[in-house]
Amino acid sequence: MPRPTDSEPPATERRSRPRVPRSNEWRTAITEIAPNRIAVRGYPVDEMMGRLSFSDAVYLILRGELPTPSVGRLFSAVLVSLIDHGVTPPSTLAARNVATSGAPLRASVASGVLGFGMYHGGDIETCMRFLGKALGRVREGARPADAAAEVVAECLRTDRPCPGFGHRIHTADPRAARLFQMAHELELEGEHVRMIREISRVLDARPDASSRALPVNVDGAIAAVSADLGFEPDLANALFIISRVPGLVAHSHEEREREKPMRQIDPKDHVYDGPPRRRLPESGK
Amino acid sequence: MPRPTDSEPPATERRSRPRVPRSNEWRTAITEIAPNRIAVRGYPVDEMMGRLSFSDAVYLILRGELPTPSVGRLFSAVLVSLIDHGVTPPSTLAARNVATSGAPLRASVASGVLGFGMYHGGDIETCMRFLGKALGRVREGARPADAAAEVVAECLRTDRPCPGFGHRIHTADPRAARLFQMAHELELEGEHVRMIREISRVLDARPDASSRALPVNVDGAIAAVSADLGFEPDLANALFIISRVPGLVAHSHEEREREKPMRQIDPKDHVYDGPPRRRLPESGK
Amino acid sequence: MPRPTDSEPPATERRSRPRVPRSNEWRTAITEIAPNRIAVRGYPVDEMMGRLSFSDAVYLILRGELPTPSVGRLFSAVLVSLIDHGVTPPSTLAARNVATSGAPLRASVASGVLGFGMYHGGDIETCMRFLGKALGRVREGARPADAAAEVVAECLRTDRPCPGFGHRIHTADPRAARLFQMAHELELEGEHVRMIREISRVLDARPDASSRALPVNVDGAIAAVSADLGFEPDLANALFIISRVPGLVAHSHEEREREKPMRQIDPKDHVYDGPPRRRLPESGK
Amino acid sequence: MPRPTDSEPPATERRSRPRVPRSNEWRTAITEIAPNRIAVRGYPVDEMMGRLSFSDAVYLILRGELPTPSVGRLFSAVLVSLIDHGVTPPSTLAARNVATSGAPLRASVASGVLGFGMYHGGDIETCMRFLGKALGRVREGARPADAAAEVVAECLRTDRPCPGFGHRIHTADPRAARLFQMAHELELEGEHVRMIREISRVLDARPDASSRALPVNVDGAIAAVSADLGFEPDLANALFIISRVPGLVAHSHEEREREKPMRQIDPKDHVYDGPPRRRLPESGK
Repeated sequence: MPRPTDSEPPATERRSRPRVPRSNEWRTAITEIAPNRIAVRGYPVDEMMGRLSFSDAVYLILRGELPTPSVGRLFSAVLVSLIDHGVTPPSTLAARNVATSGAPLRASVASGVLGFGMYHGGDIETCMRFLGKALGRVREGARPADAAAEVVAECLRTDRPCPGFGHRIHTADPRAARLFQMAHELELEGEHVRMIREISRVLDARPDASSRALPVNVDGAIAAVSADLGFEPDLANALFIISRVPGLVAHSHEEREREKPMRQIDPKDHVYDGPPRRRLPESGK
Repeated sequence: MPRPTDSEPPATERRSRPRVPRSNEWRTAITEIAPNRIAVRGYPVDEMMGRLSFSDAVYLILRGELPTPSVGRLFSAVLVSLIDHGVTPPSTLAARNVATSGAPLRASVASGVLGFGMYHGGDIETCMRFLGKALGRVREGARPADAAAEVVAECLRTDRPCPGFGHRIHTADPRAARLFQMAHELELEGEHVRMIREISRVLDARPDASSRALPVNVDGAIAAVSADLGFEPDLANALFIISRVPGLVAHSHEEREREKPMRQIDPKDHVYDGPPRRRLPESGK
Repeated sequence: MPRPTDSEPPATERRSRPRVPRSNEWRTAITEIAPNRIAVRGYPVDEMMGRLSFSDAVYLILRGELPTPSVGRLFSAVLVSLIDHGVTPPSTLAARNVATSGAPLRASVASGVLGFGMYHGGDIETCMRFLGKALGRVREGARPADAAAEVVAECLRTDRPCPGFGHRIHTADPRAARLFQMAHELELEGEHVRMIREISRVLDARPDASSRALPVNVDGAIAAVSADLGFEPDLANALFIISRVPGLVAHSHEEREREKPMRQIDPKDHVYDGPPRRRLPESGK
Repeated sequence: MPRPTDSEPPATERRSRPRVPRSNEWRTAITEIAPNRIAVRGYPVDEMMGRLSFSDAVYLILRGELPTPSVGRLFSAVLVSLIDHGVTPPSTLAARNVATSGAPLRASVASGVLGFGMYHGGDIETCMRFLGKALGRVREGARPADAAAEVVAECLRTDRPCPGFGHRIHTADPRAARLFQMAHELELEGEHVRMIREISRVLDARPDASSRALPVNVDGAIAAVSADLGFEPDLANALFIISRVPGLVAHSHEEREREKPMRQIDPKDHVYDGPPRRRLPESGK
């Protein structure tokens, strides 16, 4: 896998001279198109094919530069983590309801993307701001544990949920745990991951914690990890879209192939009949 | 990278007993959700994170099984190939026009997905059927070159374009060439790739070929490669969506960050000002 | 209500001279915009306000000319007929699922529009082609009753539903009956309405008609009425969108106002608690 | 046109007994569906057809009750006012770009709906809140003119536009003028319309008013009128969607019928070639 290194060569002679834009022209820094030539952030797409993984290409197009190997590994895990969550999320149900009407697959997928609302995917951005507030207190001199206690108290006082915590179904989100573990092992843990752990400790120490668990959820974990990687909130939110679109495709396709049109979709009345639980085969490496 | 092998162990005791669905239940084979457990096509998602690449996870969720290493490499190149094509495709312009209105990023992306119409992305499915028709003649006993000539003659006679051939901008599509090269090197070339090459030879031999090139375009290449990998037309079409969504995110984000709201977007009046052409760094391996 | 009459005055001096378009210009015949002047199909929009009903304005923008009074009345009834059909249509469920995710109202409505698929709203266009086929036989010399019997037999033989007939819930669609009654009273009944009635008679005379009713449904009625009014299939389909959008708005709004976010929406578990059945007040005229 | 009157008869025997919902049931107050019976807010839809105008039916489904005659007239003018604004709004361009890709008409329309962002249509809601702030000051004892001056000064000081004022193209919006005239004539002018006029006077008296006009725009006028009619901000915003969808249909259809697929749509290079300016025919009444 090619990676940026310190010894990267200087720009070659093939470098295109940046021409001065005319006053009425607008600018884009994403992809340069010329006859028989397509370059994404400067790299020829045909050179990227087979040499860059898809997740590295996604990172490149969003951030403008290639990830380092460890960042690339963590980023890829982020995209894998959200790929699907079964039939009950509202985005999946929106996609399936559109599919049952006989609409084309891309209409179902678009409808699913529209179902990533404030309470579903949108929590990534909200959680980034929440962590930012706590870290602001730290920068003003507070100890991290005190800053965490303060922002939690504010949520509890105003009876609002702590963004990035709690889940409809899980009391411990396996995706969040794995992301934190990877960030730690890859030495990519930063102040946001450390702060979300502080906040989690505060929540676990609540008097009523035993009656209702408030674990870090996957949105919270991705918010923390993405913030440590330097993602802007708008783009961190978009990671949810990029990651989940394949899941929406799979559900839309399954609805079209397996079910009768115009059925009434009750999210509760379903049963999983796919492959039983299994382990990944050992790596051939 | 873990891969299926012939020596894959039998299902373990952890295997969940498939229960008999009640009559009013509907079924899904994609993802099994239980408290603190998420399994995609049987594999725990937290085990997939860090061990499966995102493109392998996409393949898994669409097809139900992991790709072999060579299929995984080719599939990843397919996803990379379509990641973006600059500011002029109608899907990108739809996304940017929604962004300039001040709508949220996911509205822009959904609008872009809706812009993958019959003439833009939809060509993958059409080309698969076109190749299928030519291969049908071969199965009836025709020589491949004759079958190719026949389906081309039919297009020219009815004055319709050959699906998967020709491009607004490119006379030789670098993405198509690279995909065919990879399919060949990975020994994944099948009857669809061979047939699209036959058809390409027929088109190049047209009397007026010098005045108007009709190269295999990336839709055609993906149609042929996906068909050889066993993808259904509906899902092959969806590869365009999955691959291009990151590009739509990048354009929507750039529009929001760099431009004034409510501007009139003229696709012709733009200039690229991103990084100059550059080579991928050598792989560290 | 102003209406076109035979004595319409000649174009006034205010008439803008149509200028010859330059070669690179594209043309629109819908709305002319100039500073402080907006004219829809030639009529100043501020003059239309208060003088044209909304449905007449819709007719004008779709067809280019004002309806006659009787056409305007029938067209208005078409738009009213489809305004809503409760919570169970897939388009409404798509909209509500997007709303429960916390997405903005316009995302819910767009998602609902995407849920007007082939089996839900798309039947209008299919039914227009079905009626056209039967009328083609009549033009070739068949008696209408025979043409009707022939196209029905073809459906039954191929085990496909007759487009425009049958309903999930209704055995006699009150909206279809009312539309036909109005078309008759307004003397706007044409060959399409007459043909759909022929077809309906054939279906009612089936041996198994008593066990499964196949009444003309509202899609069929609108297909027949719109075709007699000269609507193209594409625009007839669009009448469903225009008419139902207010219903989608009402459902999206109700979901946001009455329900908790992120709920699981089961279409079967609902109860109506709005105003009891009531009569329209007598007209004051 | 039937209207609510004081002498409305008591509920008839046909009134359905409201049954007590079971605990797991959710509730809707919009439309009651039973076999062969559809009632919107209690009124049978087949009785509404031909007796209620489409705009009265829209009002009914959004608000739950029929409008009085004068409210119905003003509401109808609101819907007519926004029906179209030519080819340059971003929502229209999003719809046309989706149409040129060969996507179905409903995908174009949905894309247009998504293009009603914060700066385009979304201003209605923002302006309602802006007027509400000024009226809050009045309720605290300020004179209306002083309250208006105060909120304008706040905008100018923070260099933000006054919501509901100014237009890309018009220096005096004919739609706003007509709406205010109608509200006045129908005696439906309330505190919001009076306040927006106060604010307009303040803006016209700015020192630099001659160099850059800031007229009330149509969003502002609709915000004021809708607020006086008691619409919630969310629903007032939705009036833009309901009104403009027919325009989006007309543009999507024109794009499909008149233009070649996959064209590059430059919003500036267009010319109007529809009917010349004309007067509405005199009413036959």
